[in-house]
Amino acid sequence: MPIPTIEWVDGRIHLIDQTLLPNEFKQIYCDDVESVWEAIKSLRVRGAPAIGIAGALGAVLGIWKSKAELKKVTDYLATSRPTAVNLFWALTRIEQTAEKHKDLENEAQNIIEEDRARCRAIGQHGLNLLRNGDTILTHCNAGGLATSDYGTALAVMFSAHESGKNISVYADETRPLLQGARLTAWELMQAGIDVTLICDNMAAQVMKEGKIQCAIVGADRIAANGDTANKIGTYNVAILAKVHDIPFYVAAPTSTLDLSLKTGDLIPIEQRAAEEVTEGFGSRTAPEGVKVYSPAFDVTPAHLITAIITEKGIAHPPYEESLASQGD
Amino acid sequence: MPIPTIEWVDGRIHLIDQTLLPNEFKQIYCDDVESVWEAIKSLRVRGAPAIGIAGALGAVLGIWKSKAELKKVTDYLATSRPTAVNLFWALTRIEQTAEKHKDLENEAQNIIEEDRARCRAIGQHGLNLLRNGDTILTHCNAGGLATSDYGTALAVMFSAHESGKNISVYADETRPLLQGARLTAWELMQAGIDVTLICDNMAAQVMKEGKIQCAIVGADRIAANGDTANKIGTYNVAILAKVHDIPFYVAAPTSTLDLSLKTGDLIPIEQRAAEEVTEGFGSRTAPEGVKVYSPAFDVTPAHLITAIITEKGIAHPPYEESLASQGD
Repeated sequence: MPIPTIEWVDGRIHLIDQTLLPNEFKQIYCDDVESVWEAIKSLRVRGAPAIGIAGALGAVLGIWKSKAELKKVTDYLATSRPTAVNLFWALTRIEQTAEKHKDLENEAQNIIEEDRARCRAIGQHGLNLLRNGDTILTHCNAGGLATSDYGTALAVMFSAHESGKNISVYADETRPLLQGARLTAWELMQAGIDVTLICDNMAAQVMKEGKIQCAIVGADRIAANGDTANKIGTYNVAILAKVHDIPFYVAAPTSTLDLSLKTGDLIPIEQRAAEEVTEGFGSRTAPEGVKVYSPAFDVTPAHLITAIITEKGIAHPPYEESLASQGD
Repeated sequence: MPIPTIEWVDGRIHLIDQTLLPNEFKQIYCDDVESVWEAIKSLRVRGAPAIGIAGALGAVLGIWKSKAELKKVTDYLATSRPTAVNLFWALTRIEQTAEKHKDLENEAQNIIEEDRARCRAIGQHGLNLLRNGDTILTHCNAGGLATSDYGTALAVMFSAHESGKNISVYADETRPLLQGARLTAWELMQAGIDVTLICDNMAAQVMKEGKIQCAIVGADRIAANGDTANKIGTYNVAILAKVHDIPFYVAAPTSTLDLSLKTGDLIPIEQRAAEEVTEGFGSRTAPEGVKVYSPAFDVTPAHLITAIITEKGIAHPPYEESLASQGD
């Protein structure tokens, strides 16, 4: 595994500080729950599966170091980011493990191992959707940096590439925090996959020119009907794909399913600070005092999603049925 | 007129250097054709009508200062930017004036005066499309900074505001060069119009939330069938508006019409340098060596455009007929 996104080493969490990529590759260490909370909140670790792992390991650190009650620790960690359900899923698993008086550190490591296996399985299922010569559009980063291993959307691309298929990728830069430009382009270049960077607003033109055969993105939470919360701009890409008759795929582990929510309207959407838009690059790029609206995620309605790739296989509409049979 | 975008003062061109806004308001002076070419190329002056004016004044300077043949001067200026037809329209007007042995400086000043009158007329025609309480989405900058006066798309908003209508605006930041964040937000704030800045990829979500009653954008070239070239991302906005059942308007003077082109497929699209995407904010935001695709414009097909607002009135489909009757 080339990218050590999040690891558990001698009772500490080792993280790549993703806010510094691609200019600087730096690993940081978290050995208390407060630093884990900060790392999630400030996106040093991001991506729904990786946030889940950070949450599980953070809960273990919280019990060890602060001697606090587990529920207080998990409640605190749950306040770091509201949209990705994998965080709550992982924290619940740790709570359930405690109720059974089993070893929490061991369970957190199980979550990491399962995540690795799920990434590989997503890649293997998804690669069948790609043909030799295909060019794929992706948005944000659903790669190794979003998981403990191979990614979700990018797992499909890595698997196709390794299987000998000749593929190319267009990566949306993904404003405001540029996860596409900073992280996805970097990962694909490291893997030797042909990648071209575009601004988010160029995707429609690239599709119109016939350059794209499918879109694949990750997910932060998927409701029972298939409505999918993912990085802001995903809904935009899904509309463009539909209008240009291009398949639009979501790739995510089943830990991203939230079957308790009937539709995506019920998914809470995190709002981010104005400065991420107006001062995102070290210099001011908008007038002082300007109002900013910056939702971190949007919800793509199920009718725009051609299929959802999980570690259990490929779910097709109607998702009420196909996802129910994949739920944990 | 509050914003002296481009002026002719004592035989020199006075320009606001728009690459420095909103952090610095600085006027620069061009007194030879080379500096005009550079100012257009590097977007110190931008916006289709303003580029036309810069071209006309630049041709006058070229004749005066370099004593070159007019055709050499206009051919040189025509190489600065390929997409906005107003540049070629203005250069042709100067050539035709020379053929008639009339005063070129006077003709360039006529072009400025006409631009001012056209902006005001566009605003007056367009304001009838807005209702009290409407919120408008706009993309890039088609404001005073894109013309010698009041703008095109923003003229409609300025006129509605002055007429007492209570309107609000969402401004796409418009990557890569952020004309929406840097220029449109600045102009609207100066005029006291409520403006909220969003990243380009948030427009779909904002529309889904019911926040937008119409979209109004400018144009760089409009073909005989109504297909419209404008800043990259405009086609994206037009698709989103259609899907969300929101009217999509183009506002432009008739000097933007190119009735010699049957469709927008024939409009040349300028490609910009990779660094505008990867180093647009003073620091590197993508891996070294990454491939970049950066078209400066896209073409919105006529079937996505609800109406085209010119100084002569509001053109509705079929545009082959309504624009033909508006052509100069």
